[in-house]
Amino acid sequence: MINYNEALEIIKSEFQKLKLKVEEVDIFESYNYILAEDVIADVDLPPFDNSAVDGYAIKFSDTSQWKIIGEISAGNFNSFNISDDKAVLITTGSKIPVGADTIISVEDVNVQSNTLILKANAFIKKGMNIRTQGNDLKRDEIAVRQFTKIDSKTIAVLASCGKEKVKVYSKLKSALLATGDELIPINEKPSEDKFRVSNIYSLYAAMKEMNHTVINLGFAKDDKEMIRNKVEAALEMNIDMLITTGGVSVGKYDFLKEIFEEQGVKEKFWKVNIKPGKPIYFGVYEKDERRILVFGLPGNPVSSLVNFYVFIKPAIEFLFKQNTINKLTAILQNDLKKKDGKRHFSRGVLFTENDELKVTSEFSQSSGNLVEMSRANCLIEIEEDKLNPKKGERVKCILI
Amino acid sequence: MINYNEALEIIKSEFQKLKLKVEEVDIFESYNYILAEDVIADVDLPPFDNSAVDGYAIKFSDTSQWKIIGEISAGNFNSFNISDDKAVLITTGSKIPVGADTIISVEDVNVQSNTLILKANAFIKKGMNIRTQGNDLKRDEIAVRQFTKIDSKTIAVLASCGKEKVKVYSKLKSALLATGDELIPINEKPSEDKFRVSNIYSLYAAMKEMNHTVINLGFAKDDKEMIRNKVEAALEMNIDMLITTGGVSVGKYDFLKEIFEEQGVKEKFWKVNIKPGKPIYFGVYEKDERRILVFGLPGNPVSSLVNFYVFIKPAIEFLFKQNTINKLTAILQNDLKKKDGKRHFSRGVLFTENDELKVTSEFSQSSGNLVEMSRANCLIEIEEDKLNPKKGERVKCILI
Repeated sequence: MINYNEALEIIKSEFQKLKLKVEEVDIFESYNYILAEDVIADVDLPPFDNSAVDGYAIKFSDTSQWKIIGEISAGNFNSFNISDDKAVLITTGSKIPVGADTIISVEDVNVQSNTLILKANAFIKKGMNIRTQGNDLKRDEIAVRQFTKIDSKTIAVLASCGKEKVKVYSKLKSALLATGDELIPINEKPSEDKFRVSNIYSLYAAMKEMNHTVINLGFAKDDKEMIRNKVEAALEMNIDMLITTGGVSVGKYDFLKEIFEEQGVKEKFWKVNIKPGKPIYFGVYEKDERRILVFGLPGNPVSSLVNFYVFIKPAIEFLFKQNTINKLTAILQNDLKKKDGKRHFSRGVLFTENDELKVTSEFSQSSGNLVEMSRANCLIEIEEDKLNPKKGERVKCILI
Repeated sequence: MINYNEALEIIKSEFQKLKLKVEEVDIFESYNYILAEDVIADVDLPPFDNSAVDGYAIKFSDTSQWKIIGEISAGNFNSFNISDDKAVLITTGSKIPVGADTIISVEDVNVQSNTLILKANAFIKKGMNIRTQGNDLKRDEIAVRQFTKIDSKTIAVLASCGKEKVKVYSKLKSALLATGDELIPINEKPSEDKFRVSNIYSLYAAMKEMNHTVINLGFAKDDKEMIRNKVEAALEMNIDMLITTGGVSVGKYDFLKEIFEEQGVKEKFWKVNIKPGKPIYFGVYEKDERRILVFGLPGNPVSSLVNFYVFIKPAIEFLFKQNTINKLTAILQNDLKKKDGKRHFSRGVLFTENDELKVTSEFSQSSGNLVEMSRANCLIEIEEDKLNPKKGERVKCILI
C-alpha cells in the first residue's frame, strides 16, 4: 500500500497533464477565476504625478509661508506655474502643477486669508506626498501574472489596466456518482438498514466552493449492469473528473474497480496508507484527445470528504499554481490516540488564544461521524511514523 | 477623531439592528449561505447499529475461531441469530445481526474454507467496530445550529436530516456609487489628469466574495445635483447598504457628506484615526420600516478597499455570528515605519517557513499603490500606541 505523499504526487502529475481550457469573461464576472494571461499595464500607473493627500502644492525652499494663488481638484487640472513663495490648494489624486515638487498636507498648515503658514511642529521634505507617474508600474510591465486568482484586490488592477474582458481558465468539469444498495433519497425516511445519500451533496458543494462545475449523476444501487451503464455514459462526457463513491472497499459487492478496468480506465493506485479514506481508487481514462481522472472514493461520507480535502483539493490548487495558506501549525489541546503506521487526518477545531494557534480534538474520531466532522474546521495531520501525539505538542492542521 | 475599535463597535451595533430576511433554498444551492434555523435530526444518526469496517460480526467470547454462516452487505440485511461460534461476513455500513456485539476487521482474520481464524497478533474487544444507533446524534437533537455557514461539511448533515429545502438568511443588498471628476470608464485611456474607475470593481467583488448582492450604480462626476439625484434614488431602493467612494475628504469638492445630511442620513461618525482610510464616513438612513447603512469611503482605491476589509467585512461577519480564523500572529521580517498615533493597516505577504508564520512587508506602503495591494495577502495591523515595529517582532495579520 502506498503512502500519502506518494499518492498525492501521482494525482498531481496526472492533473498536470489535463489540457486547461481558456475563456474570456466580463471583468465583473471574473472574481474567483484563475487568470489565464499575464495582464500588461497599457499606461503608467499612476498615469501622471498626483497628490497623495489633500494639501498645498509648493516648490520646496527655506520658506515657511506662501501665498495661495489658486486650486486644483482631482479631475480639474488648472495650469499654474509655481514659484518660490506661491502655493496652490490641491486635493488627493489631483495632477501636480508645473514647478511644484512638494505637497504639504492640510494637517500641517494654518491658513490666514490667502496666506499659508507652516505649523511650528510640522516637518516638510522635498518631494513629499507626491505619487509619481509610473511609480506603481510602468507601461508594458506585467500588472497581474497568469495563474493569479482574481479577487477584490486584483480586480482593481485589472480595471486600472482597462481589462473589460479577462482571459481565465475554464472551470473544471466533474461528474459525481454515488453507489450502494444502502442509499435512499434524502426525502425518504431511513428504515431497516438504509442511509440517506449525503456524499453527493458534500462533494457537490466542495467542488462548487472551489468554483468548479459538477454534473450530478445521482446514485445507483449495487447492480453491476446499472453502474456499468452509468460509468460508461460518464466516460463519454466532456468532463475532467469522474468521482464515484462506494464500491471500492473489499466487500463482495465492491465491484466498481472491476467496472473501471473493463471500461479501459488505467488504475494508478488503489488504497493509500491513511485513515480515514484508505480505500481510495485513482485511475486515468484516455480516449482520443480526452482525458478523465477517475476517483473511486469510499462510500463512507466522512472518508470520501476527507479524501476530497487531502487529495483532490490540493491537486487542483497545484494545477492552478495556487499557493494558499491552508496548513497551519497549532498546539494540540488533548492527547490523540494513534497506534498504527498510517497517516491520520483527525477532525479538529482550530482557534486562537493569547495570539497562539491551538487545536482541540475531543471528538470520537469515528470515521462515520458526520456531525462531528461538520463542527470541525481543520484536519489534524499526523504523519505515518508519529504515534499518540500528546497535549502540548505542535501539530499540522489543514483548514477545511 | 475616534479610534478604530470605537468606530467598529458603532458599525457593528448598527448592523445588528438590520432586519434579516429569511428565504428557503434548495439544498444544492445552499452552500455559502448562513443557516436561518436550527436543523433538527428527524431520525437517529446513524439510524441503526452498523459495522464501521468490512469484517465479521460475532458474539464476543473466549473463542478465536468461528464458522461463517452467511453474509450481510450494506443495504441488504439478512436476519441471522449469532451465537457463540458463528460469524457473518459483514461490509461497512451494514446493519448488525441479532446476537452479534462485536465486529472483527477483515485485516485481523484468516479464512480457511468456511472457518474464520483470528490472527495470532490480533486483539479483539467487545463492541469494537460498531457504530451504534444515535451515537452521532439522537432524534430531535439539533444537528446544525442556526447561523452556521453552510459548506461541504454541514451540507452532508443537512442531507442526512432530510432537508431538501433549507431556511437561510437572504443575501444583504448593497448599492455602490463612485464619485469624482477624475474618474473615467475603464475602456477609455487616461489622459491629462484622469484615472480609470477601479473601486466599484473591487468593492463589487468584495461583496460578492462574501456571497452578497450588489447593485452597481456606476460613477458620477462631482456635480452636486447629479450626485444628489443618484443618492436620493439609492435611498429609495430596497437595500441594506449604500456604499459610495470619493467626496468625503476635506477638499472643496467633497460634498457627499452634505448630500447625506440633506437626504436625512444621520451621521454616526466621520473620520477614524487609521491609515489608510481615515476619511471614512458612516451614517444611517431610516424611513418607515426601511433602514440603510451608509458608508462614504474615500476615493483612493486602496483606502476604500482597506475600509471594506477592516470595517464592513468584520461587521457583516459579526451580524451573521461567523467566527472565522482571519487574524493570525506572525513574525515581522522587516522594520516598518510608523511615527504617528493612528492604527495602521499595512499591506503584507504572510507565509509559513519551518512551521512558523512570517510576514514580509517590503512595500512602498503608499496608500495609492494598488499593484502592491493586489500582491499582498494580509493587512498588518499596528495599534495606535505602537511605533515603528521592528524585524523579529510578532504582529497581527488580517487575511485578505
